Amino acid sequence: MTNGRRAIGLDIGGTKVAGAIVGEDGTVHAELRRNTPDTSDADTMTTLLREMVEELRGDAEGADVSAIGVGAAGTVEWPVGRIRWAPNNNYENWDVRGLLESACGLPVVVDNDGNVAGLAEARLGGTRNDHMVLLTVGTGVGAGIVLDGKIYRGPHGLGAEVGHMNVNPDGPQCGCGNYGCLEAVASGTALTRMGRSAALHDPRGMIATLAAEAGGEVTGQHVTMAAMAGDSTAASLFQRLGRSLGIGIASINAIFEFEVVLIGGGLVDAGELLLEPARRAAREFHYGPPEVRPIPPVLPATYKGDAGKIGAGLLALEET
Amino acid sequence: MTNGRRAIGLDIGGTKVAGAIVGEDGTVHAELRRNTPDTSDADTMTTLLREMVEELRGDAEGADVSAIGVGAAGTVEWPVGRIRWAPNNNYENWDVRGLLESACGLPVVVDNDGNVAGLAEARLGGTRNDHMVLLTVGTGVGAGIVLDGKIYRGPHGLGAEVGHMNVNPDGPQCGCGNYGCLEAVASGTALTRMGRSAALHDPRGMIATLAAEAGGEVTGQHVTMAAMAGDSTAASLFQRLGRSLGIGIASINAIFEFEVVLIGGGLVDAGELLLEPARRAAREFHYGPPEVRPIPPVLPATYKGDAGKIGAGLLALEET
Repeated sequence: MTNGRRAIGLDIGGTKVAGAIVGEDGTVHAELRRNTPDTSDADTMTTLLREMVEELRGDAEGADVSAIGVGAAGTVEWPVGRIRWAPNNNYENWDVRGLLESACGLPVVVDNDGNVAGLAEARLGGTRNDHMVLLTVGTGVGAGIVLDGKIYRGPHGLGAEVGHMNVNPDGPQCGCGNYGCLEAVASGTALTRMGRSAALHDPRGMIATLAAEAGGEVTGQHVTMAAMAGDSTAASLFQRLGRSLGIGIASINAIFEFEVVLIGGGLVDAGELLLEPARRAAREFHYGPPEVRPIPPVLPATYKGDAGKIGAGLLALEET
Repeated sequence: MTNGRRAIGLDIGGTKVAGAIVGEDGTVHAELRRNTPDTSDADTMTTLLREMVEELRGDAEGADVSAIGVGAAGTVEWPVGRIRWAPNNNYENWDVRGLLESACGLPVVVDNDGNVAGLAEARLGGTRNDHMVLLTVGTGVGAGIVLDGKIYRGPHGLGAEVGHMNVNPDGPQCGCGNYGCLEAVASGTALTRMGRSAALHDPRGMIATLAAEAGGEVTGQHVTMAAMAGDSTAASLFQRLGRSLGIGIASINAIFEFEVVLIGGGLVDAGELLLEPARRAAREFHYGPPEVRPIPPVLPATYKGDAGKIGAGLLALEET
């Protein structure tokens, strides 16, 4: 038996929903995972979440769960807990908090997935810090901004969209419709786009070959595999991507004076392929003399894919 | 006689130091102004500030002054009140707070000039708001960020450098040494650079002619005069500059979810020449559907050149 309160943390992504019973120290006592239904409308999703909560509470460790926290991709109104808009899901204006509180009889808090992941890193990660940002570099670029120990959300929870800071108005189009967002040049989607272009120009190169062997189109993962195997074209794509990320990091450091910058999300599995050029550009574009304005370390996040559900659980424990 | 407490507000710029006795409602009871000495080292500057404080206190209205607030261009450590670094002045590591408290026997607070100007606008401007930014577009681009009613400075006062957010890594060099800062493309310095280039390409155009008539090199003011007189080349430079400013505004709106964006500084005197393209680009690059994430209004600031000293006085009244 462990002491302390427990909450259920749920992390709603574009392809899967992860759930866990989380303790105050971040310990995961039980967990489960479901695929996000193809028809990810509000009714279907609410039913799925209710079933996951019931299953987790049915677990012996779940008896004393006191609250539910939800982290979700998309624009989440805070503290109302309504998901206004999610580029990769069909729900819209989904009152997650209200519906889940009615269905489960527990207090519910709902926040953006980047925010809850940032909370997990700030409170329990290897570099606990009250002035930091977590950038999650996956399909998109998410962010959790922690200022003076608190998640920064904007007055209605619509802020912290660092991935949609413009880094080059003449850059490629982003999933959001704008041109030159950080997400458009420094995400898994950007890596896929660059990899496809590289394969087109060199159909016998390693990127194209790996994709052909797998029997499908080039994805960012083929680029990562090729770069890890020493392919120079793939490595150069990571240099480009990491440099864009580093320039974005320098910009937010000018604005926020962060003490630590953490990189999470799927692409951080590429390790130094991503981090080295990002650090270099963050130094190159750093504002001010480093002895006056220190350059914060750029480090991999502690909680890979678990950050969302753990952070959602922590948020529920802190806010209820 | 008016009621309430009063403070002295001092605004240290690259070319002048402005001082005033400021009431809680922002009323200026007395004011004076000195040129910044060419040898703007810490000793000379401290003496100048002490003399200005004595003169202001000597005024009949200055009898009940309870504190001193200083706003200064440069990197100001908060709450220590030490100016670490100022690109346009010779002082460095200047302990303004300590020296001025000793010299004047009053509590002193020292902050970045953009921050105190932002405070004046947030508390007393025409669009008082707790979630806003003031961008001062002058020689450089300064900023005062107000989050939940409080100035955001970063953990040691080194943040809020929105002017050094990168907007194009291949852009022109900034006074800070980096390439493509917002300040490098959306400031008076940028306008001067663009104006000189235009005059070089068209020596008989209005910009070159106005400068020649004034007997000197082209400055941003000649561009402004030409644009106001209807010169299409000068107007197109404002379109470029305003567009860059608007893209920067869209980026910080994605990050902060501001409710109001105010534009101050010398260039706002150009009015719609600057504001119209800025608003257009801020809309074009706005993140998310406007019905979900509203587009904040971009408005001229209330307190032109007085924002610094009034805000410095207000800050002293709030913090002491």
